[in-house]
Amino acid sequence: MTDPLTVHVPLDQGRDYDILIGRGLIAGAGARVAALGGKAAVIVSDETVASLYGDALRASLEDAGLRSGLVAVAPGEASKSYATYAAVCDGLLAHKVERGDLVVALGGGVVGDLAGFAAATLRRGVRFVQVPTSLLAQVDSSVGGKTGINSPLGKNLIGAFHQPRLVLADTATLDTLSEREMRAGYAEVAKYGLIADAGFFDWCEAHWRGIFSGGPERDEAVAICCRAKAGVVVRDEREDGERALLNLGHTFGHALERLTGYESARLVHGEGVAIGLALAFRFSARLGLCPGQDAGRVANHLALAGLPTTLQAVPGGCGDADALLDAMAQDKKVKDGALTFILARGIGQSFIAPGIETNAVRAFLQDELGAA
Amino acid sequence: MTDPLTVHVPLDQGRDYDILIGRGLIAGAGARVAALGGKAAVIVSDETVASLYGDALRASLEDAGLRSGLVAVAPGEASKSYATYAAVCDGLLAHKVERGDLVVALGGGVVGDLAGFAAATLRRGVRFVQVPTSLLAQVDSSVGGKTGINSPLGKNLIGAFHQPRLVLADTATLDTLSEREMRAGYAEVAKYGLIADAGFFDWCEAHWRGIFSGGPERDEAVAICCRAKAGVVVRDEREDGERALLNLGHTFGHALERLTGYESARLVHGEGVAIGLALAFRFSARLGLCPGQDAGRVANHLALAGLPTTLQAVPGGCGDADALLDAMAQDKKVKDGALTFILARGIGQSFIAPGIETNAVRAFLQDELGAA
Ligand SMILES: NC(=O)c1ccc[n+]([C@@H]2O[C@H](COP(=O)([O-])OP(=O)(O)OC[C@H]3O[C@@H](n4cnc5c(N)ncnc54)[C@H](O)[C@@H]3O)[C@@H](O)[C@H]2O)c1
Ligand SMILES: NC(=O)c1ccc[n+]([C@@H]2O[C@H](COP(=O)([O-])OP(=O)(O)OC[C@H]3O[C@@H](n4cnc5c(N)ncnc54)[C@H](O)[C@@H]3O)[C@@H](O)[C@H]2O)c1
Ligand SMILES: [Zn+2]
Ligand SMILES: [Zn+2]
Repeated sequence: MTDPLTVHVPLDQGRDYDILIGRGLIAGAGARVAALGGKAAVIVSDETVASLYGDALRASLEDAGLRSGLVAVAPGEASKSYATYAAVCDGLLAHKVERGDLVVALGGGVVGDLAGFAAATLRRGVRFVQVPTSLLAQVDSSVGGKTGINSPLGKNLIGAFHQPRLVLADTATLDTLSEREMRAGYAEVAKYGLIADAGFFDWCEAHWRGIFSGGPERDEAVAICCRAKAGVVVRDEREDGERALLNLGHTFGHALERLTGYESARLVHGEGVAIGLALAFRFSARLGLCPGQDAGRVANHLALAGLPTTLQAVPGGCGDADALLDAMAQDKKVKDGALTFILARGIGQSFIAPGIETNAVRAFLQDELGAA
Repeated sequence: MTDPLTVHVPLDQGRDYDILIGRGLIAGAGARVAALGGKAAVIVSDETVASLYGDALRASLEDAGLRSGLVAVAPGEASKSYATYAAVCDGLLAHKVERGDLVVALGGGVVGDLAGFAAATLRRGVRFVQVPTSLLAQVDSSVGGKTGINSPLGKNLIGAFHQPRLVLADTATLDTLSEREMRAGYAEVAKYGLIADAGFFDWCEAHWRGIFSGGPERDEAVAICCRAKAGVVVRDEREDGERALLNLGHTFGHALERLTGYESARLVHGEGVAIGLALAFRFSARLGLCPGQDAGRVANHLALAGLPTTLQAVPGGCGDADALLDAMAQDKKVKDGALTFILARGIGQSFIAPGIETNAVRAFLQDELGAA
């Protein structure tokens, strides 16, 4: 393999870390993990990813002199539960993970969030390494230190801020990712362009096929996304402000996930985000904030990449405008009845818009639903 | 009530807080909690303590304009479980605790550890207030930010460092505490004298009855203990060094708790600590580190207060020397086979002693067991 791309995340208090991006990183992961110190490095993964990459990662860790082990959970969002969290913690303890040892999250965002939360709370905190294997995890969830699980009362309501000590994004692992998961992750890639980097969105329009096919554009795109996210996280780690911009498209997206019962057969997160991005731009245009032309460009590009961009595209439907509003009101971005949206003045020009009137949203959604 | 005693805990990064100590603090708790900001303050308690003080605390919070609520768990160590943790988190969410709101732990160390961990992880961290109602919680567990639950694989293995924003130690609540729990907490009080404050141990010998009966000595003792613990915590929050001194008597004590199956009918934590303190001093004397006279004084005083001080005093027995060694080896204070003890050069002169030989410990324990 060629040298990996590197993004440094300069957090304070000795918590800075590197994100390495390249094809084939898993084969050499052991030496990089061993360099962090510790005697054991125990892997948490899901059964699908473990069967593909678990042995290679374990072998690499053990070759580097680390005692290793594997805790595998069922694939899918349902594993971000209290019960699986307890099983992962007990599994790590059974593998005798001590305070100086490492937890290695090998998998998509589900495994990263779950293993990260277990690491945050095992013995009141052990260090962890992210080895993200889905596009979404490589460009988003593995960076920034948000970890957690779901409660029956809502997604990601339980968790901790716990930064990884290292992120190894082996982009060759995406070769085995399903087309659908690849597209879903791509919605988050495009999101970074839409938030604050119009030039990157242009580049995506020209080069997106290389990301899917595994050309050098893939590594480049992952690095650009990680750099963008790392910058936001360093400036606003706890989401008191700017970090909320990363939720562009997510207020609508989360509502759609909720209304489809988090059934991935109907809608996965990135598909909800794709629809949400298109809606955020059309809503911005309707409010006179953003050129209608930009809203059109966003929807066209996402559709070209095979992503849904309308409420009608939700399999089984998503209810009426009030059901959508209700589902949005349960989101954390709601304060005292008024909705906070991330809106845009154009591609690459997003901003936090608090106090958006419920009536304006309802009218917009009604038109979107009627436009079938 | 008279003005409460105050101990300030000067932690960095805006995490400093006050410990207030006095009779009747619950009645005025609402105003002090409301001063921290937030709209809701939801209480976590156990059923015993909730029935005694829950209504008064709720009324005080609501009088101060806070929306309140109560999540009650079964009393006892068994509530420091994954399942009860999940139930507490979901209970707090059902009471609509938002990021700016407060969790109030009303109870002994079990409730404080459990509610603190729920607060540390609810929405990735909400603020919490400790209202400790057992002597142990007032002098030890409510101060210092260690929160957590037990795993089937061991005590306190899951948790987080999460400092309270305020501690309200209403010493009048101890009037309803059982004699046995009072004595158990008193072992931790005496511990502070033994660790580093010979003058306080002298004072305890003279004034311990006032602590039990609820005289002004009680508030004074709680304040002295909190000041001592706060000092250690500020200097070594994450237990990289000095904080380990607080474990004086606990290596033996934890082993005894383990060997009695954590059955409080047989042994509660403070009783294990009392035996452990006596053993730590006798072991120090045997190693020629500490005058035998000091070891005798320690055991005599604890016995006078009604606490056990020998292995023979463990109801149902505690196994032989090897069983004890095994149980100690499972403790976190074991590194690479060698045992780390907290030993003493005399009353008020404890120190961390790493690398104590297993054989020396075994011989000591055999003599202790044979000395029936
Ligand atoms: N922590 C954060 O900041 C953050 C940010 C965004 C999303 N998330 C979370 O991420 C989760 C979604 O992540 P995801 O989309 O990666 O889901 P996921 O982890 O469930 O992975 C999707 C599917 O792809 C499979 N898979 C993963 N890598 C593979 C590979 N290389 N080859 C073949 N199959 C592979 C998995 O087994 C799974 O079935 C959600 O729970 C979401 O809340 C977290
Ligand atoms: N976090 C820390 O730093 C730390 C330090 C030491 C101990 N601990 C933990 O503390 C726990 C032990 O605490 P504990 O001894 O307070 O046990 P506890 O919380 O179980 O309380 C003991 C009993 O006393 C009852 N009780 C409490 N206050 C009462 C009152 N005012 N009137 C009547 N009954 C009352 C409770 O209902 C319970 O049955 C253990 O789990 C231990 O691990 C934590
Ligand atoms: Zn997302
Ligand atoms: Zn103790």
